[in-house]
Amino acid sequence: MRIDIITVLPELLKSPFEASILKRAIEKGLVEVHMHNLRDYTDLSYNQVDDYQFGGGAGMVLMIEPIDKCISSLKAERDYDEIIYMTPDGVTLNQKIANSLSLVGNIIILCGHYKGVDQRVRDAYITKEISVGDYVLSGGELAAAILCDSIIRLIPGVLSNETSALTDTFQDNLLAPPVYTRPSEYKGLKVPDVLLSGNFPKIEEWRENKAYERTKTLRPDLLNE
Amino acid sequence: MRIDIITVLPELLKSPFEASILKRAIEKGLVEVHMHNLRDYTDLSYNQVDDYQFGGGAGMVLMIEPIDKCISSLKAERDYDEIIYMTPDGVTLNQKIANSLSLVGNIIILCGHYKGVDQRVRDAYITKEISVGDYVLSGGELAAAILCDSIIRLIPGVLSNETSALTDTFQDNLLAPPVYTRPSEYKGLKVPDVLLSGNFPKIEEWRENKAYERTKTLRPDLLNE
Repeated sequence: MRIDIITVLPELLKSPFEASILKRAIEKGLVEVHMHNLRDYTDLSYNQVDDYQFGGGAGMVLMIEPIDKCISSLKAERDYDEIIYMTPDGVTLNQKIANSLSLVGNIIILCGHYKGVDQRVRDAYITKEISVGDYVLSGGELAAAILCDSIIRLIPGVLSNETSALTDTFQDNLLAPPVYTRPSEYKGLKVPDVLLSGNFPKIEEWRENKAYERTKTLRPDLLNE
Repeated sequence: MRIDIITVLPELLKSPFEASILKRAIEKGLVEVHMHNLRDYTDLSYNQVDDYQFGGGAGMVLMIEPIDKCISSLKAERDYDEIIYMTPDGVTLNQKIANSLSLVGNIIILCGHYKGVDQRVRDAYITKEISVGDYVLSGGELAAAILCDSIIRLIPGVLSNETSALTDTFQDNLLAPPVYTRPSEYKGLKVPDVLLSGNFPKIEEWRENKAYERTKTLRPDLLNE
């Protein structure tokens, strides 16, 4: 898999891809992630890539020309399965979308910034608009990092224990059951007896009940999907 | 406002807080963000902070003792309004939650990792559990960065133009209308005439209609809230 990220702030995205699971996935050659600084694709002075909105109003808008140039130069090199724009009014990311994107070959992710991108970019070049949630961020960069993390960890071979991802919350429309580790008692707080019993069918049953109970209490909407 | 983030991967969170709006907010003294490496709070060899789950199963669990020590040492210094745990089964973050958290004084954010934290941590120390969306990440670090970004940009003085945040998507339960910037024509793609008309009441009306139309098409659920 290859991911090309177009951004005005490549430096913001540096550390998330140089640590932990994303770093290991890149080092193992399971995914390539390339950052493209939008300012490298403008001919304007001061590397300008944004301007005031037509019609007035607060907030700058990313211009169409540098985005077109950047996307065109990438598409000249290879085919892309999706050109994704991170925006709070896109389709809300969920585990199903992450699962399906983890199977594609090449994607471009365009990060908005300030007030967003010129609408003509969205109309002409973008194939999928994704939101990470119903809140506003100062830019699409952290949203792009979230999208990459949610996808990359699902690529076979990325997680050291593949069964780990299969038992995660949302993979079966249930929240995960509570987990406990050593010590079995800490300042009077005890681990449930059943987990210490060694009776694995009973432990499995307890976990299923807890997962269902927790989902019914906290997220009943997931049970109806 | 002061934010203390407890994590096993402080290096992952480096660049998001050293760029753009978060950096400026910190430099202006509008917010303090402190990272705490959980490994500094364990007495075990190899700075161990996680262990296998009781009852078996894939995935490591963060232990209660180092988390208790870290939280206790912070609480000994000052009072906290909220101790937040980032977890996919928490309350889903939305703009309303971001707005209300932007008004508090001190918060602790605990990032889960691997399979999560020992349930006793959640029962005994956590006051609020927040999810950034219905998908699984490799850790709570990027979720914590998202939460911080969504909150910090709302603190008065952080955005250079305060009216900018007020017209964002979600602040009025409407998606934002389309935005355009120069040039008015690019490769045959034109900006809507009304935005070039200079007729501001008409522009305002067009934007309101577009915002409503877009919300009704893409996110009718927002209109019923």
